[in-house]
Amino acid sequence: MVKVAVAQAHLEVGDVPANISETLRLIDLAAKQNAQIVVLPELANSGYVYKNKQELIDALAEVDVLKIWKDKSKELKNIIVAGFAEVQGEKVYNKSVIIENGKVLDIYTKVHLFNDEKEIFTPGDNPPKVIQTSIGKIASMICYDLEFPELVRLVAENGVELLCVPTNWPEGSFNRSINEPRPMELIKAMSAAATNRIWIALSDRCGEERNISWLEASSLIDPDGWPIAQVGHGAGIAVAEIDLAISKDKSLSPKNHALNDRRPELYK
Amino acid sequence: MVKVAVAQAHLEVGDVPANISETLRLIDLAAKQNAQIVVLPELANSGYVYKNKQELIDALAEVDVLKIWKDKSKELKNIIVAGFAEVQGEKVYNKSVIIENGKVLDIYTKVHLFNDEKEIFTPGDNPPKVIQTSIGKIASMICYDLEFPELVRLVAENGVELLCVPTNWPEGSFNRSINEPRPMELIKAMSAAATNRIWIALSDRCGEERNISWLEASSLIDPDGWPIAQVGHGAGIAVAEIDLAISKDKSLSPKNHALNDRRPELYK
Repeated sequence: MVKVAVAQAHLEVGDVPANISETLRLIDLAAKQNAQIVVLPELANSGYVYKNKQELIDALAEVDVLKIWKDKSKELKNIIVAGFAEVQGEKVYNKSVIIENGKVLDIYTKVHLFNDEKEIFTPGDNPPKVIQTSIGKIASMICYDLEFPELVRLVAENGVELLCVPTNWPEGSFNRSINEPRPMELIKAMSAAATNRIWIALSDRCGEERNISWLEASSLIDPDGWPIAQVGHGAGIAVAEIDLAISKDKSLSPKNHALNDRRPELYK
Repeated sequence: MVKVAVAQAHLEVGDVPANISETLRLIDLAAKQNAQIVVLPELANSGYVYKNKQELIDALAEVDVLKIWKDKSKELKNIIVAGFAEVQGEKVYNKSVIIENGKVLDIYTKVHLFNDEKEIFTPGDNPPKVIQTSIGKIASMICYDLEFPELVRLVAENGVELLCVPTNWPEGSFNRSINEPRPMELIKAMSAAATNRIWIALSDRCGEERNISWLEASSLIDPDGWPIAQVGHGAGIAVAEIDLAISKDKSLSPKNHALNDRRPELYK
């Protein structure tokens, strides 16, 4: 059994030191509940709603967030998965990192950019890797990536047990419907988990940034597709003790297998 | 605008004439509400829970359901989409037909068989075709097929506006969770509609067959993924007047397109 935490953060656009402090506070909260892994939102060092690339580059100057998270992971002997913005030369990337016991195991760059992200970030050119950790096989993709069933299939095929998804889900008419308790992004995430029989740990945002508010939908979703732990309203964490190994059972019925039943020759 | 009906049927295993009468009753109900298209469940002529292939072959003997539905469609000048079992030589197929004004426009054979269907039916070897009808572009796939995002993507890519899905969704622990109003199959269907921005007309079963009961989840789902009409408990129809053309707008945001944002080179 593994204790997994999803952390929902309130971040401030432009105030990188404050944002990093907020991530450390949530990471410590998770550790106090003995979580072996904690997942943080997308762009957890920077916040989201920048006017342009230069404003983001200026905000990021000279703060080495990876060093800070590595030190924290080493101190707590845990796994941290977090989204962050990174400047390289004249480009800015929307990335996520997997750190275990102070070591960076993988860095992934978001390949599907949402809306104005296209004006700021350079997309990645590699799919997420599935990484063997002490708790099991994990991978990370970021926010809008999760809405592409093809990408989730790929990591499922590669054996992912727990898919960690840092997100910034902005509130908007495209994801809400009156009387619906869940936004459509979460419905898609539930479907992705059930379709591939994998665990998904989703960390979203709360609060407001420049008139954008967030769905506050951070959830841990089981391989049947049901959210078993949610943060709810405001900043904080949700922790659950789960069995990652059940994701290895891909049975949908005594005679059906979520992956082997596919007929790829018919999908083109 | 198009009036679409989804029909939820109570069928009896082994009593093909009674089942066909039930389909005609529901088709007439839909016509009385001026529905231009009516979708019926999977295996609407036969029922579902057969002990073996021979029992189904015996039940099907010498009843030409397609002729009956063609005549009805000609009489009503409508479109009928329905699932049916068909014997060919020594094989039995789980098919769906699209009939408009008495003419068969397409017949599709289910390619992903669920559980004991594998003992009875021969799977199809062709993906669903997208068919131009007087109301717009429609296609049909059957029940478990819908749980393969790859297949839904294909018909979306081929321009489907309304995906018609005859189903027999058996009630079971794998699709229900306490306090959840919707089964996971419906969550998957909602995600499929939203992911591809298409309409989905799902027709399910009600009642009981040999101790199997059904999810009664017949729904019309909009391109945002929300069910806008549902039959609810028991046999009957749900009708809604909808604009199929909105499925042509694949925008997920001002700068995102549900299909063009894909990066297929990264999905392998």
